[in-house]
Order: sequence, then C-alpha cells, then structure tokens
Amino acid sequence: MIRERIEALREQMIEKGVQAWYLHGSDPHLSEYMPEHWQTRAFLAGFTGSAGWMAITMEKAALWTDSRYFLQAEEQLQDTGIQLMKARLPETLDVSDWLATQLQAGHSVGTDAQCIPVSLFRQMQNRLEKSNIMLCDTGDLLLPFWNQRPQLPSTEVFDHAVKYAGESRSEKISKIRLELQKNQCDLQILTALDDIAWTFNLRGSDVPFNPVFVSYALINQSESILFIQTGKVPAGLKQQLQQDGITLKEYNDIFSAVSSITEGSRIWLDPDRTNQTIRNAVPDSCTITEGISIPCQLKALKNATEVACLQQAMKKDGVALLEFWHWISNALGHEPLTEYDVVTQLNHFRKKQADFRGDSFYPIVGYREHGAVVHIQVSKENALPLAPEGILLIDSGGHYLDGTTDTTRTIALGKPSPQQKSDFTLALKGVIALTEAVFPEHTRGYHLDILARKALWEHGQNYGHGTGHGVGFFLNVHEGPMSIRMEFNDQTIKAGMVLSNEPAFYREGEYGIRTENMMVCVEKMQTQWGRFLGFETLTVFPIDPKMIETSLLSQSEIDWINRYHRMVYDELSPRINEHLKAFLAEKTREI
Amino acid sequence: MIRERIEALREQMIEKGVQAWYLHGSDPHLSEYMPEHWQTRAFLAGFTGSAGWMAITMEKAALWTDSRYFLQAEEQLQDTGIQLMKARLPETLDVSDWLATQLQAGHSVGTDAQCIPVSLFRQMQNRLEKSNIMLCDTGDLLLPFWNQRPQLPSTEVFDHAVKYAGESRSEKISKIRLELQKNQCDLQILTALDDIAWTFNLRGSDVPFNPVFVSYALINQSESILFIQTGKVPAGLKQQLQQDGITLKEYNDIFSAVSSITEGSRIWLDPDRTNQTIRNAVPDSCTITEGISIPCQLKALKNATEVACLQQAMKKDGVALLEFWHWISNALGHEPLTEYDVVTQLNHFRKKQADFRGDSFYPIVGYREHGAVVHIQVSKENALPLAPEGILLIDSGGHYLDGTTDTTRTIALGKPSPQQKSDFTLALKGVIALTEAVFPEHTRGYHLDILARKALWEHGQNYGHGTGHGVGFFLNVHEGPMSIRMEFNDQTIKAGMVLSNEPAFYREGEYGIRTENMMVCVEKMQTQWGRFLGFETLTVFPIDPKMIETSLLSQSEIDWINRYHRMVYDELSPRINEHLKAFLAEKTREI
Repeated sequence: MIRERIEALREQMIEKGVQAWYLHGSDPHLSEYMPEHWQTRAFLAGFTGSAGWMAITMEKAALWTDSRYFLQAEEQLQDTGIQLMKARLPETLDVSDWLATQLQAGHSVGTDAQCIPVSLFRQMQNRLEKSNIMLCDTGDLLLPFWNQRPQLPSTEVFDHAVKYAGESRSEKISKIRLELQKNQCDLQILTALDDIAWTFNLRGSDVPFNPVFVSYALINQSESILFIQTGKVPAGLKQQLQQDGITLKEYNDIFSAVSSITEGSRIWLDPDRTNQTIRNAVPDSCTITEGISIPCQLKALKNATEVACLQQAMKKDGVALLEFWHWISNALGHEPLTEYDVVTQLNHFRKKQADFRGDSFYPIVGYREHGAVVHIQVSKENALPLAPEGILLIDSGGHYLDGTTDTTRTIALGKPSPQQKSDFTLALKGVIALTEAVFPEHTRGYHLDILARKALWEHGQNYGHGTGHGVGFFLNVHEGPMSIRMEFNDQTIKAGMVLSNEPAFYREGEYGIRTENMMVCVEKMQTQWGRFLGFETLTVFPIDPKMIETSLLSQSEIDWINRYHRMVYDELSPRINEHLKAFLAEKTREI
Repeated sequence: MIRERIEALREQMIEKGVQAWYLHGSDPHLSEYMPEHWQTRAFLAGFTGSAGWMAITMEKAALWTDSRYFLQAEEQLQDTGIQLMKARLPETLDVSDWLATQLQAGHSVGTDAQCIPVSLFRQMQNRLEKSNIMLCDTGDLLLPFWNQRPQLPSTEVFDHAVKYAGESRSEKISKIRLELQKNQCDLQILTALDDIAWTFNLRGSDVPFNPVFVSYALINQSESILFIQTGKVPAGLKQQLQQDGITLKEYNDIFSAVSSITEGSRIWLDPDRTNQTIRNAVPDSCTITEGISIPCQLKALKNATEVACLQQAMKKDGVALLEFWHWISNALGHEPLTEYDVVTQLNHFRKKQADFRGDSFYPIVGYREHGAVVHIQVSKENALPLAPEGILLIDSGGHYLDGTTDTTRTIALGKPSPQQKSDFTLALKGVIALTEAVFPEHTRGYHLDILARKALWEHGQNYGHGTGHGVGFFLNVHEGPMSIRMEFNDQTIKAGMVLSNEPAFYREGEYGIRTENMMVCVEKMQTQWGRFLGFETLTVFPIDPKMIETSLLSQSEIDWINRYHRMVYDELSPRINEHLKAFLAEKTREI
C-alpha cells in the first residue's frame, strides 16, 4: 500500500513537472500535535513517530527521523522501499544535501508550501540554489489520491474566562497593537494555534492534549480578524467576539486576506511559526519584519491572575497525584498492575478535581528499564507489570481551566539500591540549584543550564535532553520562546515566565530518574548592579524521601528539601482526609 | 591641527569622488597593539584610546568609542569639531546607520580596505546598500598629507626554540596542511600576527607587549611563504627557514601573491582576522571557505611541552611577585611610594628571572578608587600615593621564553573592612567554582561563566567584563578563539587550552577587587556518558589571606584554598631565601 502511494505521488510529481518532492510532515500551523487530516507522513510512509520528514525522487524515497525513533522507523519502513535516514548523525546527509546528490542542475523540487515554515523553506532554497535546483510550491500532492482523508476537526471552541486569563481579549489585542507600533509595524499575521488561543481567550479541542483550534488571525491597528471554520463558534460566543471588535472569517479566507493587505504595509511575521504559503501571499509592496510573534512573547509572561490560578491548579494536581500514590502503594502486591494502569489511574484521579479538562500530554510512565526510554508511551500491549521493587518514573500533567501542570516524580516501589539513590540525589541537587539560582536580567537559559547538571557532571554523569521548557496557561505544555538547555536560545529569562525544571539521569536497560517541578520566574532584588531574578516553585508534591541519599546533600540542600516538604504538607493537608494526611506526613517527613 | 588634518582628508575625499570616509583605526593585521605607522586614529583625531572608529563627511566628523574612553575622548576631542559618539548606548547610531542619515542615495563611502576586516566591510556594505550608498576602497587617504609618518618597525625577528614550542615549524605547517585537506581547501591565508609567529616559531618586537612582527603568510600543500621585510630576518635564521622549506618574500608582495593564486583554488580565509584588501585580491575563480584560521585553532591547544614550560614560567613569575610583595610590605610607610612605583618594581623583579622578555601588558595597578577603573594605566603624573591602609589591585604579567603569564591579586595594605573582605571572598568563590568545574566536551565558555558569578549574584553583585580569556605561549596575552564570558562564543573549551580565571568586583569611587589565576583545561574522566574536562591552576602565587572572610566559605572551598596555598609554598619555597620563605609561609598559612 505504501509503495502504491509513493507511485501515485510520483505520478503527481510528473504532472507538476518536479523531479522530487519534499514532505515536511507538519500542519500549516507547525503544531506539535496535528489533526489527522494533516498526518501526511503516517499516510505516505506508514511511520507514526512524532518527528520525521521525507524526500521522494523518481527513483528513491527517504525518511529522516531522530534517534528516539530509529528502531520504530526501521520496523515501520520495512518493505516500503523507503530508506531510513538517521537525522543528526554525522554520516547522514541532511535533506537538502541529499536532494542535491540525487538531482541535477536545472531540476526542481516541489513541496506543499502550506506545511513548511518560512525559515526552513528559505534555508532549503538557498542550499538547493547552489546546485542550480529550484524549490517550488506544488500544493498538497497527496490530495488527488488520499481517499477517505479525515476531515478537519469541527469541535466547538469556547471562551476562556477573564477570571482565569487575567486579561480580556481586548486588552491583549491592545497590547499587540502597541508592540506593533513600537516596532514600526502595521500588521501581525498569526498562525501558531496557541498564539491565537491566547490572544482571543478561546480554547478548543481539535487535537489531543493541546486545547487549541485550527485557525489563523490578522491584527492591525483597526481590525482583528479570526479565520476559523465559523460553524465551530457557538452563537453566543460569536456575539461576544463581535462586541469585542473581532471579525470572524472562514478559515481558508486567510490567503485572500493576506494577498489583499493594504499596499506598502509593514508586516510582522514569525519565520519559524508561519508557513511559506502565507509568506507567498504577501503583496510585494509590503515590507516584512521577521521576529518571534508578539503573542508568543507576551503570553510567556504570565500575569498575576494566571500565576495565582496556577498555584491553585497545582494544589489540585498535588491532591490528585497524592491520591494516586496512595492508591498504588496499597494496590501494589495485592492486584496485578502494569504501567498502563498508572496512565489510566492518573487520569482517573485528576478527573476528580474541579475544572479538569484533560491530560496535558500522554503520561510518560517508565518502570525499570522503560524509565530510561525518555519518550516512552506505554500502551496496554507493551506495558510492563509492576512489582513491589524497582523504581517507577511518572511524568504527567493536567489541563485545568486555571492552568496546565507538568510534574515528574521517580518513586521507589521497593527498597532502592545505593546507586539508584545516588543517581536520584545528583539529579535532585540539580533541581535545587536551578530553583535557588539568582541571576541578573538578560540571563539566558543556556547560562543557567549548568546549575542543573553540575552535580551529575562531577560524577561523570549527564542527561541528553534540555532542563526546562515554558509551560502554557491552560494551553500547550510545551511553550516558547525561552528554554533552559545547553543549546543556544537568545531569549532571556524574564519575571513571569513559567518553566519546568527537570534534571534527569538514565541507565539504559536499567532505569530512568527524573524530578520535575514547575516554577515561575520572579524578581529577587534590585541593587546598583542590576535587577536580579530567581524562581519560585509552583509544583506542590512530595519528592520521594526513600530515594534521597542525604550524605550527598549539603546542609542548605537538606534545608531546602525540608522547607519544600513543609510547604507541600501545609498546602495539601487541608484538602485531604485524615487517612491521606498520614500518608502525606510520611512522604514529607523531615530528612 | 586636527581641524587642518580633517580638511586635508576632505580634499582627498573630493579627489577620490567619495562623500564620506570611514576610518576603522586598526592595522592591516587587526592587532590589539599597533606600530605607530598605523595609529591613524591618534593622528587624525588626537584621540589616544585603544578603541575608536571614525566617519568623516564633507560637513561632519564623528568618532565612536566605548564607555572606558568616554571621559578621555570628550577631553581630547574638545575644539576639534569631531563629534563623540558613545558606542553601544541605545541612543547612539552605529556608524553605518549614521552614514545613512548623513548621505543620500547614490553617494559613496570610502575606506582603506587594508585596515578593515572582511566581516565588518561586508556588514557595512550590506547596511549601506539598503540606502543605495556604495562602500568602496580608496586606499589610505592619510598618506598624501601625513608628513613625518613613522616608518614600519624594522626590529629583528628571532627563532623561538623547539624546546619551548614543543613542535617544529615543519610539524606545525604539516598540521595546517592536514587541516586544509580535511576541509577540502588548498590554501590558508594568514594575516594575524600571532598566528604567523606561532606557525613559524618566530618572535619579534615590532609592538609593545606582543612579541610579534609585521608579516603575512600563505600556506598550501607545497609552499609556505612568509611575507616580511626580509631585512628583519638575520642571515642564519634565513638559512634555517629555507632549510625548513619556507620561502621569504617582501612584506608588500602579499597582494600580488594573492591575486596570482592558482585559478580555481579553494581558499580558507578568516573573515574577522583578514583585511578586505586581501579579500579583494583573491581571483574570482577561487572559492572561499570562511572560518577561524587554522593556526588560531591549533595554537589554542597547548602541547605538553608548552604546558610544562608554562608551569616553570609560572614559578619564576611567582618568585618575582613574591619578591615584589615582600619589598612593598617593607617599603610602605618608610619611603614615599605611588602606584607608578608598583609598575616599575614589578618589571624590576621580573627582569631578575631567567629568560624574561618583557611585560606581557602594561600593568594595571589600582589603589583605592583607581582599583575600580577597570583598564587604568597609571603614569608618573596620575599615580596615587600608597599608604599602609586600603586595598591595592595589581594585574600584571610577563613574557618568558617559556611562557606568558597574567596574574591579578588584590592585597590589603592595611586592615581591610568587612565589606572589602566580603566582596573579595565572593569573587574568590567564583575563582574556586570555575577552577573546580567538571564539564563534558562541547561545553562553551558561556555555559561555564555563571560559576564565576553565582556567589556575587546571590548578593546582588556583578562585574561588567568577561571571566576568562585565552593566553598565548610567549605570545599575546589575549588570544582567541575561546573565552569564558556571558556573551555568545561558539568555540568549545578543549583540553590543552590555557585560560585566565578572573572574577572581580568594583565599587566605583571606592576600590576594585579581582583575583586572577591562569589555568589549563585537562581531561578529568571518561565515562559512558562522555568525556569530562576540567581545569588545573597554573598560577603559583598566594591569595592574600587577610582579604578572606572565612565565614562565607564552605568547607570544601576552605580546603581548596589550603590545598592551593600548600602547593604554592611547596613550589616557591625551594626557589627563595629563608627570609622570603618566612614571608611566604605567613601568606600561605592555613585558614
């Protein structure tokens, strides 16, 4: 079937006069989670990993994916004739270089410009031009032969109340307009779904785990237009939006709207968050200022209402997690349990909390060696059975109307080994050091990252992923533009930003360890040498004391843990019954 | 006189048909220290600061300099008609933007392409093109009216023996050739004077403080050509170079040599270390690979001989500094002393050491409030008198045939205040943390910098300069390409690199504090999670125990200081008399 689809694609390529086709594999909004309608990679290659891009020539087909998916891709691509390209290995050509070796000068590469970001399109274009190869927009070549292609989702959107958001959509639009003015721009094109949801205080359920809805938007000094399948907006909400000065247009009208932007307009466009079709539609008379989209920058700075709400959501989440921990502690050894039961029970306990709107991502549950598989998604089929021994890594979170949570704890199901305790404690030292950091304004995440790794490095240990990502407010659990990681990211860490703090350590084939708290960046002091920032922890949940090797901790680290656990006890105990209180007291006991 | 020179320049501008002229103010080798021949900025503006660049139109003249020189520039530019532009302040236009506001479309800006790096020329060109203004090479327009212009220096060059360098020039040239091959290049153009001095194991005395000589070089697979005033090379050395397969050509022959490079050659060129005239001379048929020059990368990795030599040089330098400290401790209060005496006495004591070849930079000596003037150069005239109270910052170094040193100590001339001790100790905690860092390969300096600042930041304190720079081996005391500072620098820290470690703190108008050790990067361990590096301290000199506030230190920091001081005592005591030994014992006493 895959071979037939590739052949059908080649027919389309011949029709369009291109010698190769590039499939970026994302949706027009460059989202982490996509509606099935845009799961083109799965359709064309049968590969279901969350990252992968393809190039198809008349003779060959190749799919690039990263190390998380090498095994899965090898299996799924078997007998398809599609070659697996192991991305980011030194010996692997990147897609542009590969295309240049496959094609000749004068050839053309097609792609669906609607599903590729402006920045990547330009980069590929520049590389291919050097070999005298053209990159052009063919539109979506799967369209003619993808029968029973899933429709776009048509779930209703809903209002996200100001009592949670802290600012009305009108206030947010005014802020965007002010930023446009400051930057001598007339108009902001919005394409990222979380940017749009934040701007308009709307949420949806078009994709799993991210409460967003498929849409575009344009904002200038006089108009704000939301492009959406208007049938998804309930009548009352329609009226409300109209009252707020927002115009609704049909989703696909964005392209004609962009192409009829007033001549000479100065447009703010985010090259990493905007697809190339939008860029192509911009009239030549307009000038473009490239930069991270304004809502992306604004929404990263949580307002006081959002932070206060989030603190409440965190307590609810803490209660749910505590009930879960209590449940598993009692059930273990008495009934047969697997990792998959953890996934379902986490949801079960979160559901009991007020204003819960779903998991914020598919829980990462890793018992024993599964813990070392960083992005494991256990299913009923592959779940390991749990026993009262070994350690269990649980990374999960919930969406509440009053905030999104993301917490990782590694708990001992039996008596942890000295090595497990040492590994756990070195990573925990990283959590504490990052939490306690004091740093001047203009510090970047890559400056801070070492604090989370220092203790591990001193023991010759390390982990292969970043330490902190932004977290949306009842929005995507991964939110830009800042991060805390070794990799370069020019965005500074600012007061109001909400970030995860998740140092880790993995022993392949044995176990994985990670402790993750969410924290908010706050001002610590202002002196004549600058304004200094730091973090306050938001997560309210015990760190398993059985895992802590006290001899590896300094007195101030021990003090931090005891302080944190007192806070956890004080915040959670009024919300739980006596039975659970005793359990909590045990888990937050002084060390 | 300055006004006349500007007018004479304008006549030249008219003759060349340009409406403005840009003077970058550096030499063709983009050196930190320049022969007088190229001190064009001082000639044209009368400004003697070490950083500054100028733009002259038919109506206006402007000079940009940074905050270190605002006061000095204001004084020196008075009545010259030259406008001071305070560089890097948000309200200050950069030179290209300023030129764009002064000129009209169709106008041309001239510059001496020989004294501007390729990267800056391109950047200015791109900016000016946007305003339809051309940037062109006029050559040196000062030539026609700079009477009595100093000649190029004609001091002799000399061989730097392999017993110090650890590698023959032939071995180094082979390494360069290998790197050229690896990078599919045919030829390396060398323009940075320290790159050339290192490659050919030669040293000179053309400028103060840097033991380099004015020259260019070309290296391909069959030839290595050194372009130098051949009269500067003694006959014996000429023969030796010839035997090593090195061709000598006259200094100015570089341009014809570059323009006659074999057609189609692939040239490695460092855009930050090569002037635009060289770039312009490259035949169109050649392709250029831009990157940090190969010798710059190679010489940063000190070989075992260099490190062993440097360890010896450090001991000699430690003895000289100790004799100095002993002398000043005794002389203070008995004879009138000023900061300037410190400058001269440092040189006096270093001169007594074997193979000393001069100061590695003009000593930075700052008593009381002078200590807070980061780049102070005291003269007989402005030197403060010293008294047995307050604190004295001394940053100095020497060139020895067996290495270059750079050490800063802040010593108490009386009883330091609690605040002084606290400031000193917080910066010292930074020295220790950076020294003790363990980090995986591929770590950059900007990852490590926070370790040096963490303790200060926690107290709302900071310093406004970088923490570490590379140090040449009997070469420039500031050497690239790596650094340890907050600013982005993509160069990783590698085993063999020699860096300074100099956290500091300044109270304007009161005093300055800095402790600087040199250190070498070494492998610490290899585990399944990577190869881990760290540092070993090279500097062998006590840290004034009177300045240390023990209550601010952890036990492991106290241990580090005691360990360091034991090493200092063990290394220096066999080299000094009994009298000095007692002094050293007191300064390295257990804390």
